[in-house]
Amino acid sequence: MAEKENLRPGAQYNLERVTDLLRKQELVEGLVRRQEGPRQELVENLVQKLHVVELQKLLDTLHPADVADLLEALPPAQRLVVWDLVKSDREGEILLEVSDAVRETLIASMDEDELVAATGQLDADEIADLAPDLPREVMQDVFQSLSPEEREELRAAMSYEEGTVGALMDFDMISIREDVTLEVVLDNLRRLDEMPDHTDQLFVVDRAGQLKGLVPVNRLLVNDTATAVTAVMDPATTTFHADEKAQDAASAFERYDLVSAPVVDGRGKLIARVTVNSVVDYIREESDSEKLSAGGLREDEDLFASIWSSIRNRWTWLAVNLVTAFIASRVIGLFEHSISKLVALAALMPIVAGISGNSGNQTTTMIVRALALGQISAANARMLFAKEAGVSVMNGLIWGAVVGLFAFLIYHSWQLGLVMMGAMVLSMLLASVMGVAIPLLMQKLGRDPALGSSVMITAITDSGGFFIFLGLATVFLV
Amino acid sequence: MAEKENLRPGAQYNLERVTDLLRKQELVEGLVRRQEGPRQELVENLVQKLHVVELQKLLDTLHPADVADLLEALPPAQRLVVWDLVKSDREGEILLEVSDAVRETLIASMDEDELVAATGQLDADEIADLAPDLPREVMQDVFQSLSPEEREELRAAMSYEEGTVGALMDFDMISIREDVTLEVVLDNLRRLDEMPDHTDQLFVVDRAGQLKGLVPVNRLLVNDTATAVTAVMDPATTTFHADEKAQDAASAFERYDLVSAPVVDGRGKLIARVTVNSVVDYIREESDSEKLSAGGLREDEDLFASIWSSIRNRWTWLAVNLVTAFIASRVIGLFEHSISKLVALAALMPIVAGISGNSGNQTTTMIVRALALGQISAANARMLFAKEAGVSVMNGLIWGAVVGLFAFLIYHSWQLGLVMMGAMVLSMLLASVMGVAIPLLMQKLGRDPALGSSVMITAITDSGGFFIFLGLATVFLV
Repeated sequence: MAEKENLRPGAQYNLERVTDLLRKQELVEGLVRRQEGPRQELVENLVQKLHVVELQKLLDTLHPADVADLLEALPPAQRLVVWDLVKSDREGEILLEVSDAVRETLIASMDEDELVAATGQLDADEIADLAPDLPREVMQDVFQSLSPEEREELRAAMSYEEGTVGALMDFDMISIREDVTLEVVLDNLRRLDEMPDHTDQLFVVDRAGQLKGLVPVNRLLVNDTATAVTAVMDPATTTFHADEKAQDAASAFERYDLVSAPVVDGRGKLIARVTVNSVVDYIREESDSEKLSAGGLREDEDLFASIWSSIRNRWTWLAVNLVTAFIASRVIGLFEHSISKLVALAALMPIVAGISGNSGNQTTTMIVRALALGQISAANARMLFAKEAGVSVMNGLIWGAVVGLFAFLIYHSWQLGLVMMGAMVLSMLLASVMGVAIPLLMQKLGRDPALGSSVMITAITDSGGFFIFLGLATVFLV
Repeated sequence: MAEKENLRPGAQYNLERVTDLLRKQELVEGLVRRQEGPRQELVENLVQKLHVVELQKLLDTLHPADVADLLEALPPAQRLVVWDLVKSDREGEILLEVSDAVRETLIASMDEDELVAATGQLDADEIADLAPDLPREVMQDVFQSLSPEEREELRAAMSYEEGTVGALMDFDMISIREDVTLEVVLDNLRRLDEMPDHTDQLFVVDRAGQLKGLVPVNRLLVNDTATAVTAVMDPATTTFHADEKAQDAASAFERYDLVSAPVVDGRGKLIARVTVNSVVDYIREESDSEKLSAGGLREDEDLFASIWSSIRNRWTWLAVNLVTAFIASRVIGLFEHSISKLVALAALMPIVAGISGNSGNQTTTMIVRALALGQISAANARMLFAKEAGVSVMNGLIWGAVVGLFAFLIYHSWQLGLVMMGAMVLSMLLASVMGVAIPLLMQKLGRDPALGSSVMITAITDSGGFFIFLGLATVFLV
């Protein structure tokens, strides 16, 4: 039961226990340091060991993913204390699980030998994941220690960029020949101690290594052992190439409920497989990085990063926003004469810009989503423009009436109210047209419409909203 | 090879083929209608059938998930044409895959018998997923057609809310007894034609149905048949309760690379299982609904929803923004006297509000993420406040200097530049403190910090930014 509790993602709980142990130890160190005397060293060693042993025991029961979480949640000094207590044969697995920013701090604390030892325990595809963060000398040593076959795998895994199927694949698969019976297959399997994780199917290949089909492992159990492999083999309906987009593999796993799928080269030769666990990790990372970039954070930030590295991580977004804010400010500057005559305009203008910005972002969210699902074709794009324009005009009339009434009630001018309403309709129309057009255009230019569409929409609705409102007011009121 | 191509998520490609076929058919119908004459009906039937047959053939080769995508991407009229061509024995599976909004339109087009037939082919846990969208009479008929055991399962599945483990679980599992050998297990398995999908392990139970452990299917293959089940059994380290949060199950699957996991009741009795495919779907849906709600869309919108239903889906967000915009507008209204004296303030104020808003949103994004990963404890919250305050003061000085210079260059007043810089520092400090405090507070109140934190931050930085800048200007410049 105790073990069960530990194997749940109780990051919060683990964090509290570890922090508590670390605090106790610091207290002890402080107490002992103040007691000058001959027994000091002895006591320090004894009491300190008690907590260290307890901490180490706790760490040993935790899954590498949970230790990784713990390390991410601790401030740098405590993080390194805990990292020193991790058994060296688990360091490689844990390095794989921590975020990039925290991985850097951990690797910086290790010497070359430790790094080579930690990396040496991993599979080729896992070493490839760590490679960009490791010093060149370490990678050379690791490479030398591999078998020729593993070196080949490592080279293959490292040759694909992030975001491709090649970056997700592993080489831990069982392939069988098509011209045998299940009995032969079962005999061969019995020689293995364990089958690789996520082996839900065996890959059937011919002499030349060409992929011929798939045999679900469960079929080996429900069929007679005299059956031929070809009799229980399925055609390989979903195969991937290593240079395909990881996103496509993720969609296929999601749609077709796959656990594993073969990766073949251009000639149909089996080279690797993709498993659902790497797909799940990929989906999570994608969704995380979308969230980060929506907030203008370039990458995953170490929670305890130095102030300077945080500022560097965040500056691009602020700089872009500064430029768009300057432009909006100059648009307002054009109408300073009107504002000085009718100061109410200054108080009312952010309403128009703000609401049309939100409306434009709603449209963009819809379109980006539909693009990601492949639901937009040349044929229905025109319908979408028409529909979004209709929604925005209706919304403009409804919300325009509300803000117009607001303006009338406060400033007692029905002309001002009407201008406000007209400006709302026009700027929401602008927002909706741009909200459809910008993501479509970015898609056409081969860029990811999920990134940056929102900034552009907001920039346009800000400057556009100010211009429309102040322009109408200048024409009709001033 | 042809089949292989079809089994890839080529939504865009399928959409184009289907749209093309539909267009051809419409053309033919139009042509034939214009040719009055006795042979009209014959020709119409013949030519029309050609395209219909081709379309139907195409639909039959597609996976239900791909047909669902296609239906979502078609405008209502064409959608119903295609839906009519779907074989009735696939309707249930496809209804499960389409989005809620599109499901409603499809169900509205079916009569009671069709719905009962479509639902009848599904498993209890799948029926439970459809249930909220089905008319009451249909559900009664379906319920009557089930076996007592299935009724029990349906009741169990329907009793859990969305977002719980109960909503993800299914009952398609194989359980075995602990006091037998692998030979007995294998004999029993051979009596099944196929094992349920995602059977990577068998669940070991005692006479009373208590979960005793797990046997990975692969162990049945690599071990001798005389081995006892207890000898190859793993302890069940990760089990779930049906009323637990689905989010927790998703984390566990992601961390521990699971394919399936048992669900037990309060007394440890095995009642169901969760499989990785439903977890993947859940993760996708969560990330989708976060994206939608970040854009202020209440739910997944049918791309071709009527203008009115779109307006209804989007109005809450616009209403909330209207209120915050009104408040900001009244804050500016307080300083109308200052603005009328120094109209440059009107042009410069959106810069302060905009940039501090963005900065606050960056902080919130970080904190929401760290909260979701369980990385924030009472001990490190104070450090985070200090760090974010440090970042914002530094950022305020840097960007404040830039905007101060901008103000000086345009309006030739160094006093105005200094006020601008001071306002940037103060409003960015406000943004960072609120950016940490709001998500923490929402978490404490038991609400989801991912929803709404961003709106609140923006509301505070808007009104706060205007107040700080115009207030400082009034004190020092006017």
